[in-house]
Formats: sequence, structure tokens, C-alpha cells
Amino acid sequence: MSYTSLQQLVDRVQSSDYGTRTVSVINATESHVLEAIRDAEKDGLVTPILFGDQAVINEQLVKLCMEPTDYIVEHADSPEQAAIMAGQSLASGRADFLVKGNISTGKMLKALFSTEADFRTGGYISHLSIIELPNHPKLFGLTDAAINITPTLEEKKAIIRNAVGTMLAMGFATPKVAVLASTEVVDEKTPSTIDAAALKVAGMAGEFGDCVVEGPISYDLAMDPESAEIKQFDSPIQGDADLLVCPEIVSANILIKALRYAGYSRSAGIVVGGRGPIVLTSRAAATQDKYWPLVLAASATIGKHQQSSR
Amino acid sequence: MSYTSLQQLVDRVQSSDYGTRTVSVINATESHVLEAIRDAEKDGLVTPILFGDQAVINEQLVKLCMEPTDYIVEHADSPEQAAIMAGQSLASGRADFLVKGNISTGKMLKALFSTEADFRTGGYISHLSIIELPNHPKLFGLTDAAINITPTLEEKKAIIRNAVGTMLAMGFATPKVAVLASTEVVDEKTPSTIDAAALKVAGMAGEFGDCVVEGPISYDLAMDPESAEIKQFDSPIQGDADLLVCPEIVSANILIKALRYAGYSRSAGIVVGGRGPIVLTSRAAATQDKYWPLVLAASATIGKHQQSSR
Repeated sequence: MSYTSLQQLVDRVQSSDYGTRTVSVINATESHVLEAIRDAEKDGLVTPILFGDQAVINEQLVKLCMEPTDYIVEHADSPEQAAIMAGQSLASGRADFLVKGNISTGKMLKALFSTEADFRTGGYISHLSIIELPNHPKLFGLTDAAINITPTLEEKKAIIRNAVGTMLAMGFATPKVAVLASTEVVDEKTPSTIDAAALKVAGMAGEFGDCVVEGPISYDLAMDPESAEIKQFDSPIQGDADLLVCPEIVSANILIKALRYAGYSRSAGIVVGGRGPIVLTSRAAATQDKYWPLVLAASATIGKHQQSSR
Repeated sequence: MSYTSLQQLVDRVQSSDYGTRTVSVINATESHVLEAIRDAEKDGLVTPILFGDQAVINEQLVKLCMEPTDYIVEHADSPEQAAIMAGQSLASGRADFLVKGNISTGKMLKALFSTEADFRTGGYISHLSIIELPNHPKLFGLTDAAINITPTLEEKKAIIRNAVGTMLAMGFATPKVAVLASTEVVDEKTPSTIDAAALKVAGMAGEFGDCVVEGPISYDLAMDPESAEIKQFDSPIQGDADLLVCPEIVSANILIKALRYAGYSRSAGIVVGGRGPIVLTSRAAATQDKYWPLVLAASATIGKHQQSSR
């Protein structure tokens, strides 16, 4: 299937037979992440385990009119220790996914990448955003706007594999993957076009699972059916992409922000490729938008349960 | 000054004391460029000289209900020869700027770069778009989405110099230049941030003329005042950029297309850095939009005349 709105993803998680997801919050000592948790919990989407300094967490909970005794709080002496403990909760099956609290992304990943935390599964870690754009007929993914700076061809393969696997778990059917470049012509002066062509071939060979890969392809042919028709670029995408893959972080970051500030999009992002998704909630998000990334992560883990229970 | 719409640029050209601009059309053998010329001529913006196969040009003029005897048509045996002749018309002062007709951009530039055409002045050639975005308070520039693929630091300097010089000639006052990256932090793993910092320093040293340069800066801080306030990034730009400089063609191309298809922008592009601007008209543009790039070019040459006549 495809989704027309983020709300449809919320509905899918709420209507799932698998009940609420358990989420481990890494250093839950700040209010914006607790607000997101509170809202997602109220809507029946998640049950949290809060890791971090117990006294500070309790204080924050009281401030937000949340009852400390209603929550499982596990004390950690440092943000890094909170990350390690949260990673272990994922590895042991206590939790389904993680949420970043009051810790930098870099420090969090470093702690999670330790042997003790047991978060990595051997693959690359990457970032996936799911975007709702007004006047666009469906939700689509964008990768990687946050973690991999200048990925190599092999890293791009892992980025696509992560994103496609996650989108399949979320319920997207056979994603149409557009590997973006500035042109549709493979040209040795334009490195992104060479990688894009190689990724198309890898996709055709089934390296990324159930999806269709096109590249190099420019944004208009990936996202605008009329442009695809005018330019007569023969492709299975034809302006109907489910996943946009950018050649490096600069173009991905510029794109996601242009979609937001010029296109008034809403988006939610998660870190994928580890033992479970990690949610990066946005401090700047409006209250009702704060829990969307939690929904994405919950949605992805429901798919995983469904797949493994087949 | 700043402009709120492309129409204001049209008004400026029409109200200029310097009369209409003379434009040389390179291989004027196809209808879409002749339509653009016809509309701009009707509005008193340009007087054309048409270079190319005389018989074919006359045939196209008749088809468009344009009277061949009303036009100066100069015969060329090939598209390349038309480019060379048009270049010479610019060098001799007969024409103010060029318009690309029925010839590929690559072939056109190659012919113009010949000694015979005398188009180059020693600098780099680059592309500048001027963009009108709904709900955005003013026009802004974007460079380089069409010519330079992976510019070096020196080439980026030339790209900025070209764009700033052109925007000043168009009447933009002291452009605020945002050198885009994925972050505001200079980081050795992210090459675009290093170049951006170097370009800021060059801007402060006055290398680009009358402008203010900030970088590295991400799209939201360059274009959204609220984001700039929330993130408290201390900068003269603060969401009010006049010119966006992308680190390479991929991000520029993705950005300009995202602005168009997600943000419903209108834009017009010209090639700058030579003896005069070159207009690349879009075949896909709606009729009334076709002549905007001609207006940009005309506007830039009026500024040039004003500067040199001081």
C-alpha cells in the first residue's frame, strides 16, 4: 500500500493486533522528549522505560503533570550509561525501539556502538525521513539527511537496504526508489550519476529486496508525473517515487529543509540499521507533531514482528 | 533594493531610460525561443538579431504570424557559426546579450569559447537563477544549478563574484549571500563546510564586491527567520538571504526543482561571467513565463550601462 498522510500511519499502529510498543528513552531528563512520550502513550502507541538520572527525570515528570510512580525509571549515572542500558533493553527484547533524549546524536551512537550496548548487527547505520507534502498524493521517504556525510557506493547500498527494509515493515508495498542526481545521463564528470547507475543495477539484481530502483534521475522526474511525461524519460518511477536517495548529506539536508520551508511539508525521522530504530524527536516540532517519529518507529517494529511471526 | 516579484523586474526594464536592449539569438530556428522574443519585443523589452539558417528562420516566423521583413536575420551555415556570429555581435557592441536557440548548451558554449567568438573575458562562466517563491517576501538568487558540476574553491569564488555582480547590476542592494551546507559547524569530514568558511572570509575581505557572505549555513537559517531566531545562529543573514550558493550542481539542481514542484516557485536562469549574459529559455515554460530570463538579462545589462556611464 501507500499512505496519503502521517495520520494513516498512526491509525495503522493503533489498529494493530500487536498492542503498544515498548520504547526505551535514552537520558529522559528533558521535557520535550517526555512530552512526545506522554502524547504517544496517551494515544495507546507506546509504553516507555525511562533511562537517566532518576531524580532529574522525576522532577521533569512532575513539571509536566506526569505521575512518576506511573513510569518505569531506571537510573543511569551518565547520558552514555543511559544509552548503553537502553541498547541492552533492545538486545534483550524488553524494548522495541529507542528514543534519543538529552544527549547529542554523536555521543549516543558512540555509546550504542560499544560491545556492551550490543546495538549493532553488522550493518551500516543510516537515517530515514518520512515526509508528508501538501498537494502531493502520498507519503514518501528521504535518505540520508542526518548521518552519512559522503557515503561510498557500498554505504549507499546499505542506506537503500535500510530504508527499503524499514518502509516494507511500515507497510509500504514495493517502494519505487529514485536515486537522485542532477541529470538522467551517466557522465564521468558527475560522480553521483555513476553511483546511481550502479545502484540501479544492484536493485535489478535484487540486492535491496522488494523494490524498484531508478537512477540517475532528477527530482522533477522522480516527483512530478507531468515532467516525466514531457521529458519522456522511460522509467518505472514516472514522478511517483516512494523513496528519494540523495548522493550526500548536503543535498539531502537542503532538500528536506526546502520541502519544509518552501513546501510546508511535515516530516519525521528515524535512525535505522541497528537492532531497532532510534527516534530523534525535534525540539522545534509543534506538540502534536512531536510523536510522529515514534509512530514511524512503532510502525516499523510492528512490520518486523509480522514478518518474523510468519 | 529588493524585489518582491519577477514582474517588478519587468517594470524596471520597461521604465529604464536606456531604451530596449538588443539581443542576439543563437540559431533562431525553433518556435519556443521566437515566441519568447516576440513577447518581450511586444512589451518593449528587446530588439532581436536572429542568427541561423535564413530560410528556416523565415519559415518559423511566418508560422508564428511574425513578419520576416520586420526582423534582422543574419544567415549562418551551422548552429556553431550562429553562436560565433552572435558572440561577435556582443564583442562589437551591436548586441547587449545572447539567447540560446536551437543548439545544445554544450555546443553553444564551445563555439562561444573560441577565439573567433571573443565571448570570454578571462573569468569563469556560471549559471544564476532568480526565483520567485509564493509566500516568500522577496526574489532571491540561486547558483549554480546548470553549469559547474563540482566547483573548486576558486571556481566557487568566481561563481559568487558573477552572481553578486549580476544581482547588483539588476538593482539588488548589497546581496546577503548564504553559502549552503548541511550544518553551521566547520567540520573536516564535511568538505562543503570548509569551502563555505573560506568563502565567508573572502567575502569579508571584499573579494566579491558589495555583499555580505555567510557560511557554512543551512537552508532553514538562510531562508526562514523563525528558524534563525530559534537556533540563535548569530549572522547577518537571519533567514533573509538574497543569494543561495550551493556546494555543487546536485544540491543546486535538487533545490531548484524542489522549490518549483513542492514550493510552486517561478524562476528564470541566465549564464553569467562572459562578455554579456546568455539566456537559456525553457521549452516547458508557460508562454507568459518564457520571457522572464530575457528580462533578467536585460535588467543586468541596464545596470552595467549605468555603472560604466557614471
